[in-house]
Amino acid sequence: MGAKTIAVLTSGGDAPGMNAAVRAVVRSAISFGMNVYGVMRGYNGLLNGDVKEMNMRSVSDIMQHGGTALFTARSPEFNTPEGVKKAADFCREKGIEGVVVVGGDGSFRGARDLCGAGISCIGVPGTIDNDIACTDYTIGYDTALNTAMEMIDRIRDTTESHDRCSVVEVMGRRCGDIALNTGIAVGAMATLVPEVPYDFERDIVERMKAAQRTGKRHYIIVVAEGVGHTQELTERIQAATGIESRATVLGHVQRGGSPTLRDRVVASRMGYHAVELLNNGASNRVVAMKGEQIVDFDITEALNMPRIFDENLYRVSARLSI
Amino acid sequence: MGAKTIAVLTSGGDAPGMNAAVRAVVRSAISFGMNVYGVMRGYNGLLNGDVKEMNMRSVSDIMQHGGTALFTARSPEFNTPEGVKKAADFCREKGIEGVVVVGGDGSFRGARDLCGAGISCIGVPGTIDNDIACTDYTIGYDTALNTAMEMIDRIRDTTESHDRCSVVEVMGRRCGDIALNTGIAVGAMATLVPEVPYDFERDIVERMKAAQRTGKRHYIIVVAEGVGHTQELTERIQAATGIESRATVLGHVQRGGSPTLRDRVVASRMGYHAVELLNNGASNRVVAMKGEQIVDFDITEALNMPRIFDENLYRVSARLSI
Amino acid sequence: MGAKTIAVLTSGGDAPGMNAAVRAVVRSAISFGMNVYGVMRGYNGLLNGDVKEMNMRSVSDIMQHGGTALFTARSPEFNTPEGVKKAADFCREKGIEGVVVVGGDGSFRGARDLCGAGISCIGVPGTIDNDIACTDYTIGYDTALNTAMEMIDRIRDTTESHDRCSVVEVMGRRCGDIALNTGIAVGAMATLVPEVPYDFERDIVERMKAAQRTGKRHYIIVVAEGVGHTQELTERIQAATGIESRATVLGHVQRGGSPTLRDRVVASRMGYHAVELLNNGASNRVVAMKGEQIVDFDITEALNMPRIFDENLYRVSARLSI
Amino acid sequence: MGAKTIAVLTSGGDAPGMNAAVRAVVRSAISFGMNVYGVMRGYNGLLNGDVKEMNMRSVSDIMQHGGTALFTARSPEFNTPEGVKKAADFCREKGIEGVVVVGGDGSFRGARDLCGAGISCIGVPGTIDNDIACTDYTIGYDTALNTAMEMIDRIRDTTESHDRCSVVEVMGRRCGDIALNTGIAVGAMATLVPEVPYDFERDIVERMKAAQRTGKRHYIIVVAEGVGHTQELTERIQAATGIESRATVLGHVQRGGSPTLRDRVVASRMGYHAVELLNNGASNRVVAMKGEQIVDFDITEALNMPRIFDENLYRVSARLSI
Repeated sequence: MGAKTIAVLTSGGDAPGMNAAVRAVVRSAISFGMNVYGVMRGYNGLLNGDVKEMNMRSVSDIMQHGGTALFTARSPEFNTPEGVKKAADFCREKGIEGVVVVGGDGSFRGARDLCGAGISCIGVPGTIDNDIACTDYTIGYDTALNTAMEMIDRIRDTTESHDRCSVVEVMGRRCGDIALNTGIAVGAMATLVPEVPYDFERDIVERMKAAQRTGKRHYIIVVAEGVGHTQELTERIQAATGIESRATVLGHVQRGGSPTLRDRVVASRMGYHAVELLNNGASNRVVAMKGEQIVDFDITEALNMPRIFDENLYRVSARLSI
Repeated sequence: MGAKTIAVLTSGGDAPGMNAAVRAVVRSAISFGMNVYGVMRGYNGLLNGDVKEMNMRSVSDIMQHGGTALFTARSPEFNTPEGVKKAADFCREKGIEGVVVVGGDGSFRGARDLCGAGISCIGVPGTIDNDIACTDYTIGYDTALNTAMEMIDRIRDTTESHDRCSVVEVMGRRCGDIALNTGIAVGAMATLVPEVPYDFERDIVERMKAAQRTGKRHYIIVVAEGVGHTQELTERIQAATGIESRATVLGHVQRGGSPTLRDRVVASRMGYHAVELLNNGASNRVVAMKGEQIVDFDITEALNMPRIFDENLYRVSARLSI
Repeated sequence: MGAKTIAVLTSGGDAPGMNAAVRAVVRSAISFGMNVYGVMRGYNGLLNGDVKEMNMRSVSDIMQHGGTALFTARSPEFNTPEGVKKAADFCREKGIEGVVVVGGDGSFRGARDLCGAGISCIGVPGTIDNDIACTDYTIGYDTALNTAMEMIDRIRDTTESHDRCSVVEVMGRRCGDIALNTGIAVGAMATLVPEVPYDFERDIVERMKAAQRTGKRHYIIVVAEGVGHTQELTERIQAATGIESRATVLGHVQRGGSPTLRDRVVASRMGYHAVELLNNGASNRVVAMKGEQIVDFDITEALNMPRIFDENLYRVSARLSI
Repeated sequence: MGAKTIAVLTSGGDAPGMNAAVRAVVRSAISFGMNVYGVMRGYNGLLNGDVKEMNMRSVSDIMQHGGTALFTARSPEFNTPEGVKKAADFCREKGIEGVVVVGGDGSFRGARDLCGAGISCIGVPGTIDNDIACTDYTIGYDTALNTAMEMIDRIRDTTESHDRCSVVEVMGRRCGDIALNTGIAVGAMATLVPEVPYDFERDIVERMKAAQRTGKRHYIIVVAEGVGHTQELTERIQAATGIESRATVLGHVQRGGSPTLRDRVVASRMGYHAVELLNNGASNRVVAMKGEQIVDFDITEALNMPRIFDENLYRVSARLSI
């Protein structure tokens, strides 16, 4: 009763581990006796017919590489009712009954629309920001965390040698998870996230002065992208404390790199689960991780869930940082 | 009602992230208003009085380093009733009411015995093997996984260039978790673990031949230490398939290295939780991770839990590997 | 006839490998039968008496860490005749006859002045920029090159997945060596250095269009800090080519990190050579590398040498990049 | 007057940076207006016609990967006069006038023989061992050095935590360069190389005891593969000193991995130089590095040069290690 021919695409910002998800979709599909297409450059590939039939060897030796071997791109045309219909027609023409979409919330809205046009779709959460409400974990998150941490470990060397304060901006526009976890892992004096307002005097200046009294001479402050004003904040800190302060914006480096084990393994499990869902005739589902379990939700419900910030972890982080 | 003075020690094999746990114990204890001692070289430090009082700065800049800044060692003397009594007497003399023990099952048996002699003890699971039944996760496991994976990624370069088969032995004497997860992450053709018997013809030779028919020309096989006979197996594979085969034993490299973010963050959370337990007057507990939650169990109960191998993940791994 | 008591300091911007140089100075000095002091925070330590006597164990396990265990700082006071005299007086008081100064050109000017006040000084080139004329190699350069390369390798993953152009600014205010070598190593489409003027149309736009005609869809452009205007340049590229373009400034991450083998080995050789010079009664010399040989020059002559940019390598880089 | 059509192959053991050399040959050849073939699996590709015409894009995005995208293999058939003639005939048939051979001494003997059969050949030194007499540097050497160093840095964490001695075997059958440089970079207590005989009591036991008296409690000993008996030596050390000792053989991990900047840049320069030689009508030359210069020698002369071990560096290493 499930799909006999499926396709897989990556959409939105790329994330390390997307290749492991694609590989798992292709290999699982073949092991279930399905045909499987790779769709190039997100939904665009369904609009301009840029797909290729995949076999066991098509996905060899891609898992260890960052980025996505299927490429990704925005698709303004697909964001119209005509675009969705055109994509669905293309799928029917090719015999594609199910599509696995690896991406973020925006990509899942596309998947929901494509379901509405008669093609079974399964979403797989792939984005470094961990900003998808229904899942504890998104593919790419662990690699981005480790990249940010390793870069701040390097910055710490020079910060410490010069008795300075370094203010480091990490990714996370709406979601402070990268900042919070990286902050704990590098022993940041303070961590600023979009979910929690901060008081400059109490949360930064007074903490630095208290630490200084215990003998501390160098400081790391981690700021999520969504908090912003990193350069300005840095100057303010230097003015208020007299400690030489420098800003660094880590930027796109955080998106790339060979995926960590966790990203490869979770992506493999999620890709497998997505195909199992299609094989069982499911549609309009998004794969998610809860604790160590792989589960799934209705896409529309998932898109409406509120994201919950881990306030408790935030409080622990404050205890450890002075 | 909780302890006013506590101590922390690391025991058994070292694991990356132990320093983050020690740091979290020290900083949390001070933030709760406790005094805290660092005990050198495991239980030995309690026998020969080798402890040092810790302040906020004692644990600065240790979190990013592998190994344990408190050192570790076996302690045959402590494994006697006289030894346990001597250690408990030393604690009482110093005013130490609670001890946090970071280590594996053997270390927890020591903690249980020290509880029996009147000192409150809390175990924190620190061992790269992930072989502690009560917890989904042990400190050092994620770093060991990533180290093993990165080393096999390197081996793959030469394996692929020469159209060879590489058989790689990873750590795990009783527990196949490192092998299973590493095998998925490197795309191993086959993974052998102590928990699941294997059939040489069906699980290795026939799989390699099936993959060869799809065009595959190089192979990685991951073997857990507890399965053993890696060199012999490698020669058997070469004889049975005609494919040039090489064995590598990764060895102690897997124990070291700067801890990954996950090891640093989980160790920080567990160290904090251990101090919170002592602060609340608890004793004879072991901290554990279930999904993404930090929980705790009675040590004696924890030591009697059976370890459960993830058979389902094992089956997924087989699907993806051809 | 040589010095019986010496000191070592690190000055100017920190660089990975400085610790290996300090270790080599301390261990070599002790093996020659000398006493040796570590001076804290550059020339400041000589002004405020912040020195510590070093033994074999003082420099254990520092070689693998970035930054400098002796710390570094600017010293406005030392940059006055009174400051130099005060430092020289302190040296005489402590019996310090020779000082090894690890740093850049500014630090060597200080060393020359201290020689003028009667203290034997030897400079060791430590700066990530490779901007010291007398030597082919400065300590920290190889680590900075590899860090920049690895970060651009990561940026490439996302650049490629999105068919973009990434413009990456690397360190090098007066010297294009980091940019030139990193550009070759990441296969940059174009590399801009302070030593060679460029023509926007010919060197960037036309090259990108020529490459596009061969099927290329993503581009890396490396820009040395000294060329500047990276954000502006990026916008100009996007406007001129229609290819989505992003700027990244790598920043202080390039200064830190565990030193590469080359930095550790060259620093060890240079530190040893510096002590040998002091042991032979030399003064006012700077240690340098020519090809694979360690040599030395008069500091004043060294400071007057013109830096030579490798035009030939620049031309090779252009041939390989389309 | 130079070659109009050339080919490139990789032969012998693979080495990181071979891909950068192949890329440089292909891109340089095209920029000189030549046609260029990639030959698969070493000399075998010339015997069984397994070559592919290369364009600018054929070598995109290979530079950052270890191993060789052209694969490599032994070729017993080519090691016969009939095999050489067959390969030369194939070249003539395809119009291939020149061949660039990336490999070690054995590969250069093949190149010399192919020259004898009328095809211009240029050797490029590619082998991790740095065991080619005519050149200061072979492609892959720097990556292997850094891999060995990073792995021993990891081993050090556990060695230090347990107060142990670790004996680590690194690659180098005839040549101690990897062991010598790695030994300096990890601060080895002793380094054993095939070029210098050692006295067990004087060079190991007495040194360890002397260091122990200064407070040292953990030890690294680096042994080149060509010295051998690593397990036996380890047991002897434990018996003689009473210090718990462990052996690790790093093995094939050292052959792989993303090439360091130095390997990518030197390989690029050497590949360019090889094509320039063919373009100028040269033949039977091997490219080499002397100091920072790229030079070339007659292959037959190069094969007869004696390798010189850096005795001076060996002596420096002994001074720094206690």
